Amino acid sequence: MSETATNDTTPKDVETKDQKNGDQNGEEEKDKTQTPPVKEMRAIVLTGFGGLKSVKVMKRPEPTLSEGEVLIRVKACGLNFPDLMLRQGVIDNPPKTKAPFIMGFECAGEIEAVGEGVTGFRVGDRVAALSEAKAWAELVAINTKYVYKIPAKMSFQDAVATTMNYVVAYALLFGVGNLKSDQTVLVHSVGGGVGQAVAQLAKTVGNVTLIGTATKAKHESIQNVTHLIDHTNDYIQEIKKVAPDGVDLVLDCLCGDDANKGYSLLKPMGRYILYGTSCVVSGETKSFFSFAKSWWQVDKVSPMKLFDENKTIAGFNLRQLLYQQGRDEYVRDIVDNVYKLYSEGQIKPVVDSTWALEDIADAMQKLHDRKNIGKVVLDPSQEPIPRPPEEVIEKKRKGSAKEKETKDKDKEKDKENKESKDKVENSDSTEKAPENGDNSK
Amino acid sequence: MSETATNDTTPKDVETKDQKNGDQNGEEEKDKTQTPPVKEMRAIVLTGFGGLKSVKVMKRPEPTLSEGEVLIRVKACGLNFPDLMLRQGVIDNPPKTKAPFIMGFECAGEIEAVGEGVTGFRVGDRVAALSEAKAWAELVAINTKYVYKIPAKMSFQDAVATTMNYVVAYALLFGVGNLKSDQTVLVHSVGGGVGQAVAQLAKTVGNVTLIGTATKAKHESIQNVTHLIDHTNDYIQEIKKVAPDGVDLVLDCLCGDDANKGYSLLKPMGRYILYGTSCVVSGETKSFFSFAKSWWQVDKVSPMKLFDENKTIAGFNLRQLLYQQGRDEYVRDIVDNVYKLYSEGQIKPVVDSTWALEDIADAMQKLHDRKNIGKVVLDPSQEPIPRPPEEVIEKKRKGSAKEKETKDKDKEKDKENKESKDKVENSDSTEKAPENGDNSK
Repeated sequence: MSETATNDTTPKDVETKDQKNGDQNGEEEKDKTQTPPVKEMRAIVLTGFGGLKSVKVMKRPEPTLSEGEVLIRVKACGLNFPDLMLRQGVIDNPPKTKAPFIMGFECAGEIEAVGEGVTGFRVGDRVAALSEAKAWAELVAINTKYVYKIPAKMSFQDAVATTMNYVVAYALLFGVGNLKSDQTVLVHSVGGGVGQAVAQLAKTVGNVTLIGTATKAKHESIQNVTHLIDHTNDYIQEIKKVAPDGVDLVLDCLCGDDANKGYSLLKPMGRYILYGTSCVVSGETKSFFSFAKSWWQVDKVSPMKLFDENKTIAGFNLRQLLYQQGRDEYVRDIVDNVYKLYSEGQIKPVVDSTWALEDIADAMQKLHDRKNIGKVVLDPSQEPIPRPPEEVIEKKRKGSAKEKETKDKDKEKDKENKESKDKVENSDSTEKAPENGDNSK
Repeated sequence: MSETATNDTTPKDVETKDQKNGDQNGEEEKDKTQTPPVKEMRAIVLTGFGGLKSVKVMKRPEPTLSEGEVLIRVKACGLNFPDLMLRQGVIDNPPKTKAPFIMGFECAGEIEAVGEGVTGFRVGDRVAALSEAKAWAELVAINTKYVYKIPAKMSFQDAVATTMNYVVAYALLFGVGNLKSDQTVLVHSVGGGVGQAVAQLAKTVGNVTLIGTATKAKHESIQNVTHLIDHTNDYIQEIKKVAPDGVDLVLDCLCGDDANKGYSLLKPMGRYILYGTSCVVSGETKSFFSFAKSWWQVDKVSPMKLFDENKTIAGFNLRQLLYQQGRDEYVRDIVDNVYKLYSEGQIKPVVDSTWALEDIADAMQKLHDRKNIGKVVLDPSQEPIPRPPEEVIEKKRKGSAKEKETKDKDKEKDKENKESKDKVENSDSTEKAPENGDNSK
């Protein structure tokens, strides 16, 4: 930790071409300010809301510690769907944060310094953190309300693969969903991080029937699911075949049409929980904006209807809970339970792949395309995939129709975010990385 | 049980003047039909939807047993708010059942005969039953899906005071509400049967703060409540004083405005459950129809709002669950849990008062006026309150303004129910009984 570090988090105008070797930029900075050199770190910065090219690895001053905070030397970062939403500027409506800023909701690493007033944490502690932002960097300063000591045998990769996904899954199944033995659960996107966490946690309850939807291509890789259903237009009929009486619990990260379908599948005493927002960035079959529209147009429900039908509808939003609603102690209790299950060997997170910070575009694209099975992890110490200049040129020339569509939408979005975009120049980031399934460590 | 009993449940045209001695009527019947005398029983019959005068004790043929049913010799019947709603014709909208019919949702007694295909029950078993109707009679034939053996030490009065109220309360707190230790619960009408059951069951969980609303007059008699609040217009402010962070669980039997107020009091991760319908018959400050209007006008809720706010809304309706939705096994599990808690001495139902079948109008009026603390019970073997003819005349002459209002509404309602009313003649039922708080056994 640097005693002389400043709170300056505004972006530098000059982008790092070779992002793992940004010393030249430090020189430029020094010329301007005439102060001693600021200690810097690499971080993933969102330069403006939009497509993949808005995300860049840049040098930033090392963070300083405020009261109640610890400084974490980051060993692994977790990638989640909300990161894609944040990039697009749709996680809040309108976005509350102005780009540029350091992205990242979760990381794990070792405590390198402890701020004033901190109790219960020491230098050297191995921890995970759920951060409102700024977790994708070599160093993170964060209030201990959002920091959790990880079990001795938990790797940092496992820590980021466990903490957010299993906390969400645990809250859904047990905090809100009140899952009991002999019940039936429907979870969408069961191949994703939360989906796989749900599948493992549901197994800790006796005799739960788990129905999961996922794209057909993923089915072979998905475990712990009683009935795997292809998420096509008529998945309702498929589910009715295996659960003719309906299901007790629907965990829905898709919303829109799926919300009404999910509600209709509930048994009396059934619970529908809307917890995620992946539809607005999926773009598999519809445009981004039509997805966003259907998401917001979900039907309202009358309490009288719930009374007649003996049903429950609920929402779960971890970010709101932690950062807007002050329920960090509620979340800490869940983390304790999750880590206990991990230590007992009852859950074992699945890591899909690990990427260097510089390969963030590839990592995001994989999540966007729903090609991951389990967690997509960033490792600040990992070497980026070598990219000969030709490859970039080649890719730009061969851009597919889908890529073009994405770019068009980026333009549309970029126009909306002109104000923040004005600060950003001459991006050379890779927009569409090769489908590289072999990046898992 | 009579082998020759018929399924005839249509009412007799001639009403029993002396309702405990209806032999004259039996004679008239014999003259008409020329068949051997049908064995008869006393039952409380709703002759048409409307006020108290629509409810009469009449002679009915003893019920015959169908496959899967047992015949119960009734020792105690429970009175509940839905009985008042049913009487008014508002429990379904529009009412599905045509008057006249035998009323009553719950009873307890001894099994006197067992139908074909019945397993697990024998003659002499002491049981409680939750019936879709017909429970207020000397004999009840009912499918064993709705019959529960009561613990050896449970009196029949306790059985009717326990079964429905504690099943509802248990389902609300643990089935839907997922109550945990250290949480705060708000329950309206805490002095009523379900309210008192909630108060006792909440105590079986560690360190629960229970906030209950009730009319001021009842406060002295109510136990097991952390904060008793007068249910006035500004009860929200009172609750915010004792629970500034909000409450984890709202159990609402009032709906209308109270639904929105209850929702607004929820903490993040809080649950609002609409379970009852007492407002539509309370008539304390508004007319029946304005209550019914506000009940149906409760705001619809968007799942997106629940997602943003981390909240849950739910409905619980035991009648729908049992008779329309086939979840009798779910209810049986709850009954088992409730009876276990009773046997362990962890819960002890409060019986407000016990009445003869003939005093049904008094009993209903007490419930209507919210003067009861705990369960209002009917006992078919109990002698009715002696009523000199003068008392009836006196009362009719001295009718208060409130009574007049009730009668006016009865007329309005009666007009709507002309079709069924046409069958009813010359009612002598007492419309407004004296406020007799000393009828408790």
